[in-house]
Amino acid sequence: MFADAKFGIGPSIEDGFYYDFELPRALSPEDLPIIERKMVDIIKADLPFKHREISKEEAKILFASQPYKLELIEEIDDDRIGVYSQGNFTDLCRGPHVNSTGEIGAFKLTSIAGAYWRGDEHNAMLQRIYGLAFETQAELDDYLAHLEEIRKRDHRKIGKDLDLFVFSDLVGKGLPLFTEKGSIIRRELERFVVDEELRRGYKHIYTPDLALVALYKTSGHYPYYKDTMYPVMKIDDEELILRPMTCPHHYQYYASRPRSYRELPFRIAELAKQFRYEKSGELTGLMRVRAFCLADSHIICQKEQAVSEINQVMDLIEYVAGVLGYKAGEDFRYRLSLGDRKDEKKYYKDDDAWDYAENVLREVLKQRGANFFEAEKEAAFYGPKIDIQMKNVAGKEDTAFTVQYDFVGPKRFKMTYIDSDGKEKEPIVIHRSSIGAIERTMAFLIEHYAGAFPTWLSPVQVKVIPVSDRHNEHAARITAELKGRGIRAEIDDRSERMNLKIRQAQLEKVPYMVVIGDKEAAENTVAVRRRSGEQLPAQQLASFIEMITREIDDKT
Amino acid sequence: MFADAKFGIGPSIEDGFYYDFELPRALSPEDLPIIERKMVDIIKADLPFKHREISKEEAKILFASQPYKLELIEEIDDDRIGVYSQGNFTDLCRGPHVNSTGEIGAFKLTSIAGAYWRGDEHNAMLQRIYGLAFETQAELDDYLAHLEEIRKRDHRKIGKDLDLFVFSDLVGKGLPLFTEKGSIIRRELERFVVDEELRRGYKHIYTPDLALVALYKTSGHYPYYKDTMYPVMKIDDEELILRPMTCPHHYQYYASRPRSYRELPFRIAELAKQFRYEKSGELTGLMRVRAFCLADSHIICQKEQAVSEINQVMDLIEYVAGVLGYKAGEDFRYRLSLGDRKDEKKYYKDDDAWDYAENVLREVLKQRGANFFEAEKEAAFYGPKIDIQMKNVAGKEDTAFTVQYDFVGPKRFKMTYIDSDGKEKEPIVIHRSSIGAIERTMAFLIEHYAGAFPTWLSPVQVKVIPVSDRHNEHAARITAELKGRGIRAEIDDRSERMNLKIRQAQLEKVPYMVVIGDKEAAENTVAVRRRSGEQLPAQQLASFIEMITREIDDKT
Repeated sequence: MFADAKFGIGPSIEDGFYYDFELPRALSPEDLPIIERKMVDIIKADLPFKHREISKEEAKILFASQPYKLELIEEIDDDRIGVYSQGNFTDLCRGPHVNSTGEIGAFKLTSIAGAYWRGDEHNAMLQRIYGLAFETQAELDDYLAHLEEIRKRDHRKIGKDLDLFVFSDLVGKGLPLFTEKGSIIRRELERFVVDEELRRGYKHIYTPDLALVALYKTSGHYPYYKDTMYPVMKIDDEELILRPMTCPHHYQYYASRPRSYRELPFRIAELAKQFRYEKSGELTGLMRVRAFCLADSHIICQKEQAVSEINQVMDLIEYVAGVLGYKAGEDFRYRLSLGDRKDEKKYYKDDDAWDYAENVLREVLKQRGANFFEAEKEAAFYGPKIDIQMKNVAGKEDTAFTVQYDFVGPKRFKMTYIDSDGKEKEPIVIHRSSIGAIERTMAFLIEHYAGAFPTWLSPVQVKVIPVSDRHNEHAARITAELKGRGIRAEIDDRSERMNLKIRQAQLEKVPYMVVIGDKEAAENTVAVRRRSGEQLPAQQLASFIEMITREIDDKT
Repeated sequence: MFADAKFGIGPSIEDGFYYDFELPRALSPEDLPIIERKMVDIIKADLPFKHREISKEEAKILFASQPYKLELIEEIDDDRIGVYSQGNFTDLCRGPHVNSTGEIGAFKLTSIAGAYWRGDEHNAMLQRIYGLAFETQAELDDYLAHLEEIRKRDHRKIGKDLDLFVFSDLVGKGLPLFTEKGSIIRRELERFVVDEELRRGYKHIYTPDLALVALYKTSGHYPYYKDTMYPVMKIDDEELILRPMTCPHHYQYYASRPRSYRELPFRIAELAKQFRYEKSGELTGLMRVRAFCLADSHIICQKEQAVSEINQVMDLIEYVAGVLGYKAGEDFRYRLSLGDRKDEKKYYKDDDAWDYAENVLREVLKQRGANFFEAEKEAAFYGPKIDIQMKNVAGKEDTAFTVQYDFVGPKRFKMTYIDSDGKEKEPIVIHRSSIGAIERTMAFLIEHYAGAFPTWLSPVQVKVIPVSDRHNEHAARITAELKGRGIRAEIDDRSERMNLKIRQAQLEKVPYMVVIGDKEAAENTVAVRRRSGEQLPAQQLASFIEMITREIDDKT
């Protein structure tokens, strides 16, 4: 296609391959099918790939018109240089190759991008063509469908399309701003978690987002978290720091007055802001941020209460996961993370305590018949833990949050309780989350539902659509009635065609559309359709309100 | 009483007077009435105060047995030294004095404290007696009653007695930890404000607690707030800082996409954490802290919408104040804070904009017939404001929060909207709070209600009190039933006398006590009493639930 094309490099990469070219004009996506047809011809011709080794001098002559290849040849520290030919085309290449072009089963060119020669912005900008290759067309098709699904579900894309969160260069990297709609989802999640935890006997408290460095030195966290903590702030003669975790704050609350065994289990919970440094290259939408809000908890209890408390924690986690639409075993499973008794630097030395704690966690998981596996050397420094391993839409498994058994914290903070025998005793602590960080949970949920949230989480629950302008007034009354009942309803009274308005509400993933035309206005009914396109029978407004209210309350 | 008492100094102070003594034994509170009786005798004797001036030498002889007086005499830079005598007592004193002891109308010795001579901890510790004096007994009695009321209502005392919040030396000064009970009040307040603002068309969002320093330089806040901001945190090559205010965050949200006139007024609200340095000597319980949560808002609107928007803001403020039990004119009034056109350093230069904005605020206040006064040179640098001046229990008036008109922010952040004529225009911003900082509001409320919160804010709304152990089971069922209905109920099933349990619930300011004895268990009724002691007629549990639920929902 381009007689004077200059060739850069063309390696295989994790997800396919690419080739960089200097071309007389910019490629457009329309060029790719043309190139693909030429590739198909070459494959059909079943040309053998012939390998030979030539000297540097021979190579320089062979690639005399290819400046990028010459630069590469110059740098090769060997006089034997490998080249491959098929038909009348010869390329500089280490190999290996398939035997002939006919062995290439299925391929697709996926995109074009600009790329500096050797990744250096001082060099020429080349044109890069990306592609995929598989042994069979079926495998290629599967992979393309998978990519499309991931692309469509990427929470960063959906977050932008549905206006759920934004970033600002002036606010800073990894610090999302939740928009009106994203904030509705966040608030629903937060209130759901808080209310559910209150119902289960937690004390839901508020503690400061920062504290003296001395607090984290006392807790023992400082040396382990120093590199991921924000810098120290000096105020007067004090050193303050943004908190990377909540535990020592909660211990200070516990220790603010003497406690009796009657007060145990003392279940402290908080929607706790936490601040951890992440490399800017690792920041990913809401999934990985520099400040997050953890649904955190510390249960201070007698050692003998641990099995029962951890069971209740697992009940809560599975209940919450169920409401959010996650299935144990399918969307997540448990990892029992154990310590390494020999590594006294990384793990607190107390073999009996480790034995007891690991056994408690293992027994709970077994009793429940939970889907779990064990992992060595993954514990916290203060004890073993159960990790909730969540699978994302790309199938990648990651720790969403944890349940930890801690026998060190109470010692460091000299936490005690007066037992029924009047003696002072040391409790243990269970660290746990029920839903993880709100930001990450939202990222998971956006991808899980591809933006089509269940009604209780939907920023707009009902879009009221007047068929024409003369129905606007009646539609406005209906919207007001819905809002008065606590339903998030919005009217679309623009002078646009009804079908366009319905289509847009569907794109916005609004679960219900209420269409108001002559018939509905006259009969005082509503025509309801779901975002799926399903049309419900015409009904009284009151019956629709009853239905949607039940759905919202039940979180289905 | 003590022949060899050594006298220190005895000045009048803002709240009365004191005198420091070195005595052979420690005084106890029981000594004060004895001293008072001696003082009454001296007053009755109506001894004249005789003033004379003597030389330093004479003074040294006169006070030869008084080492503290000698020290003071040594330091006087004048040979004429004033002394006052009444009866056989002579003291070193500049005066003036009343003519005779009989002119002292009413007095009271209030307390004893230790005090280092001249306030220096290297000196001897003396005993200080504090007292009050008024012209009449009635004035003294009023003042004592007032002091007692302030003492009883001090939110720090009540906060401790009712276990609402605590501080921790390891967390840091001015950083309160809200306990389970305090957090209930806080959460109720927060949800009330958020829900009310959502109902009134606000977008309630979440933005980060920190941002790049550049954000505050763009906003123009940095030079004005530098000294009250926390120190800069360097991360990679960026400079981050805890936010001292929310405005620029909200502007970044507004500016995240182009806005149309149809979207205005764009009412952004947030429960926003803010961080400001306060001198440690100025920190006061929840009233003045180093990190607080402001019910903040920025209304971005057309200039022509300002009057209507500010009126709606005032409606909201007065509604919220009413629910919280504050009366306009009595508990708070408005201050219209104006700028100084001549001070171009402190106030942004734009005379027309100042004229327009000041007029808008004044007109709104006048239209509403609001109780307000004007104050020069109290505006923000970006425009005039209305301050909500709240009176505390001691009668001291302070700015609780503000409503500000801002014509500078939109310029600095180049905020625009596309008007109906298709042209790009500049909006104005109204900064406002509806309730102020949650911490300060709680401090005010604790003092306002002296801890006896209305039912919707009470941490425990119902205390269920079984008359004896055999009623515990029935009482537990009733407690569970109340909890199931969302009422914060607690059982007191200790083996204590009923009257003691009732007394304790009253001390805890629990609004309702439900007493369960034989009669109630048999007839399946409840005997309800209010914390005031008032007894309600025996009733079915359902009727009590209906009554208290209505009271909670109505926030009365």
